[in-house]
Amino acid sequence: MKHYLSINDIKDLEAAVAEAIELKKDPVKFKSLGKDKTVCLLFFNNSLRTRLSTQKAAINLGMEVMVMNFGSEGWQLEFEDGTVMNQGKAEHIKEAAQVVSQYCDIVAIRAFAGLENKALDEAEVVLNGFKKYANVPVVNMESSVGHPLQALADAITLEEFGSKDRPKVVLSWAPHPRALPHAVANSFVEMMKLQDADFVITHPKGYELNPEITNGCQIEYDQDKAMENADFVYVKNWSSYSDYGKVISQDPNWMLTQAQLGTAKFMHCLPVRRNVVVADVVLDSDQSLVVEQANNRTYSAQIVLKKILESL
Amino acid sequence: MKHYLSINDIKDLEAAVAEAIELKKDPVKFKSLGKDKTVCLLFFNNSLRTRLSTQKAAINLGMEVMVMNFGSEGWQLEFEDGTVMNQGKAEHIKEAAQVVSQYCDIVAIRAFAGLENKALDEAEVVLNGFKKYANVPVVNMESSVGHPLQALADAITLEEFGSKDRPKVVLSWAPHPRALPHAVANSFVEMMKLQDADFVITHPKGYELNPEITNGCQIEYDQDKAMENADFVYVKNWSSYSDYGKVISQDPNWMLTQAQLGTAKFMHCLPVRRNVVVADVVLDSDQSLVVEQANNRTYSAQIVLKKILESL
Amino acid sequence: MKHYLSINDIKDLEAAVAEAIELKKDPVKFKSLGKDKTVCLLFFNNSLRTRLSTQKAAINLGMEVMVMNFGSEGWQLEFEDGTVMNQGKAEHIKEAAQVVSQYCDIVAIRAFAGLENKALDEAEVVLNGFKKYANVPVVNMESSVGHPLQALADAITLEEFGSKDRPKVVLSWAPHPRALPHAVANSFVEMMKLQDADFVITHPKGYELNPEITNGCQIEYDQDKAMENADFVYVKNWSSYSDYGKVISQDPNWMLTQAQLGTAKFMHCLPVRRNVVVADVVLDSDQSLVVEQANNRTYSAQIVLKKILESL
Repeated sequence: MKHYLSINDIKDLEAAVAEAIELKKDPVKFKSLGKDKTVCLLFFNNSLRTRLSTQKAAINLGMEVMVMNFGSEGWQLEFEDGTVMNQGKAEHIKEAAQVVSQYCDIVAIRAFAGLENKALDEAEVVLNGFKKYANVPVVNMESSVGHPLQALADAITLEEFGSKDRPKVVLSWAPHPRALPHAVANSFVEMMKLQDADFVITHPKGYELNPEITNGCQIEYDQDKAMENADFVYVKNWSSYSDYGKVISQDPNWMLTQAQLGTAKFMHCLPVRRNVVVADVVLDSDQSLVVEQANNRTYSAQIVLKKILESL
Repeated sequence: MKHYLSINDIKDLEAAVAEAIELKKDPVKFKSLGKDKTVCLLFFNNSLRTRLSTQKAAINLGMEVMVMNFGSEGWQLEFEDGTVMNQGKAEHIKEAAQVVSQYCDIVAIRAFAGLENKALDEAEVVLNGFKKYANVPVVNMESSVGHPLQALADAITLEEFGSKDRPKVVLSWAPHPRALPHAVANSFVEMMKLQDADFVITHPKGYELNPEITNGCQIEYDQDKAMENADFVYVKNWSSYSDYGKVISQDPNWMLTQAQLGTAKFMHCLPVRRNVVVADVVLDSDQSLVVEQANNRTYSAQIVLKKILESL
Repeated sequence: MKHYLSINDIKDLEAAVAEAIELKKDPVKFKSLGKDKTVCLLFFNNSLRTRLSTQKAAINLGMEVMVMNFGSEGWQLEFEDGTVMNQGKAEHIKEAAQVVSQYCDIVAIRAFAGLENKALDEAEVVLNGFKKYANVPVVNMESSVGHPLQALADAITLEEFGSKDRPKVVLSWAPHPRALPHAVANSFVEMMKLQDADFVITHPKGYELNPEITNGCQIEYDQDKAMENADFVYVKNWSSYSDYGKVISQDPNWMLTQAQLGTAKFMHCLPVRRNVVVADVVLDSDQSLVVEQANNRTYSAQIVLKKILESL
């Protein structure tokens, strides 16, 4: 693997998931693989799970890790070509990316959507800037439009807890007080398109995700109907895509309840707002897989780093 | 040892102190003990000594260390049960603690008292939240009501510099411009209760510590009288406990002077405000043990981590 | 080497440069040298290159690294002797430096000039405070008046890309919207004084550097004339030294253009503001050495750490 920017960078998802599940039995089995290799984790936004699980994955592979909060510890970056840089931005992505890639063997980047300018967010200036100018593989630790490490962890979790050949999986929008990016939902959809599953997306009208991503997916506006006979319900808020970045509904009826969940397993990428996105009783039940999903973040990152290390 | 939340979690303090003093001769003697083990240091507040000495202790034991400034790098945490999380807090301690504990073998936490709500501070929501929900041992790197790594370092220092079987040890309040927590004083008192010593606490009226902690201790409101024939004087400011979190006196007469100290050794946990808490001449004299105390923070942390690693 | 505070702390610059160039062929050759040694990197200011390259250098030498943003993660420091510390500063450099040096074998420090008080900046209170009170070697990661790790990297780059026995090297001031310190320019000048080169400094009148540093150097106020037949042009902004810390000109004619550069190699320490300090076309040409200079930061730090480790 050269870069890991999207779930589609994994050639054989089923095999990668099987490998991750095998890896969990002996996480330090490949500790010699990362000897004298360094990964640099650059955070342009906050992070808990991604920060710790990606570090842990690298440690398990015997790598050295350098963590940097780019915004507060480094310099403001300029991404436009040809700019006269006489304002607040001290460094251009061209230099920053080339420079950083000289200090490490892999660079991993988190840079959220700003949700103010769709074209700018979709241009993925940070991630693509590093991809373009860095001389080392780039790993997406959540960008404007995708969170493929989460999607790979979700695929591992689905495999571990699925009992059917073709499970029914529902991605349900949920209310949230703040405008959130589409990254997790997008990558989950992209991952599900690679699965043999009955996959349904449900959300209020106006919350349609990017149609280029949901192309071919079943969309059901009636949440109850969508959830009938579900095996897994993945709940996630996102802001409007058409009315870009706006909160157009906070309808509490869309909060996931135990009654709606039925006997399905509950999934969420975390952090999750209790009793807004999902009822306490669901999160606290044995049907909730959120902690297992978070645990699989280590193995999802480890598989990705391992595949990149193997191709260096 | 399962957790290290208070000095009382050490079964045999005298033996632990002796072990720490032995360890100083060869700090990396047990470097293989921490192989493939990771400690996560979570800071909800600033730290210098604790940050570096606990990292160093873990390194000496061969552990991997992940450091995180939880407040600025992660998500705001909710600690109440049943809350509708539609305000500023994005994640519940239930998920955060379970998740973090999957990425490490030990989690160490610093979360100071807010000093606005006694009941809330005494509930130790951060520390106890992690203790309750994490699946790994928890180490207290200073909580609302205790700083047991400091107290253990102080016990090591007392042993190293004591020449009597039963020394006289005085804990003296000192003035300070800001309201400070009771954690250091509390843990020092708890530690002293395990020592064979003539222990006296001195402070202005109104600065009584939690009586449940000082229960059985001698309290002397006359600082000069308290210090007569002292072998060690431990100086520390704390805010009022009864008039919770308030600065009710800044009386400069309580600043420790060389005259008051006499021939005793001077101790303080640092950071210390010169010429407010203690006179320059005391800090700069050979009687000051503050640098040795800080050095012993490494070995105090190392003994604690070692005991936890041995019981994993 | 005891400390590395200035380029003059290197006894034989030519030999050190040759050693660094040799080291690039096998960066982990001396990995056993740093076994059980720890370097603490203390940042009082932002950093990208220095932060990552110094970490990488230490890793290459097998050292443990502890990184700390002193300002935001620790306590505000007092540097004056005899102060009554009843204001915002919680800790004195005397304690901080002694304490930190107990947790590591080498301490590296970045503390920029404030540019408001020349005498204060030139006193180098942070760097000299650590030098005075720490019990371990101190490395300058850019102080008020010098950036010797950059200067050593620049010397390596000059050697790698020079084809003449006695090249012509020009240090040219460039415009910048903000007031910048003199550290990089100062250390470059000090390094050049150790080289066999035709060295010229060019800047508008009023931008003379500290004459004690430029003593004996050729200064040419006509930028075009200075650049005639140059082999290397090092461009850098600095604020006025005589009218201390002031921006007295932003004359865009001083921005380096391709026409002015001619066939010379272009150098800059980065970060660089495109089309303010230097034209895009220069930075994007094969004549630009900025990425190579940044790469050499790893080897410059590694040579310094290696020499210190060897003398511990």
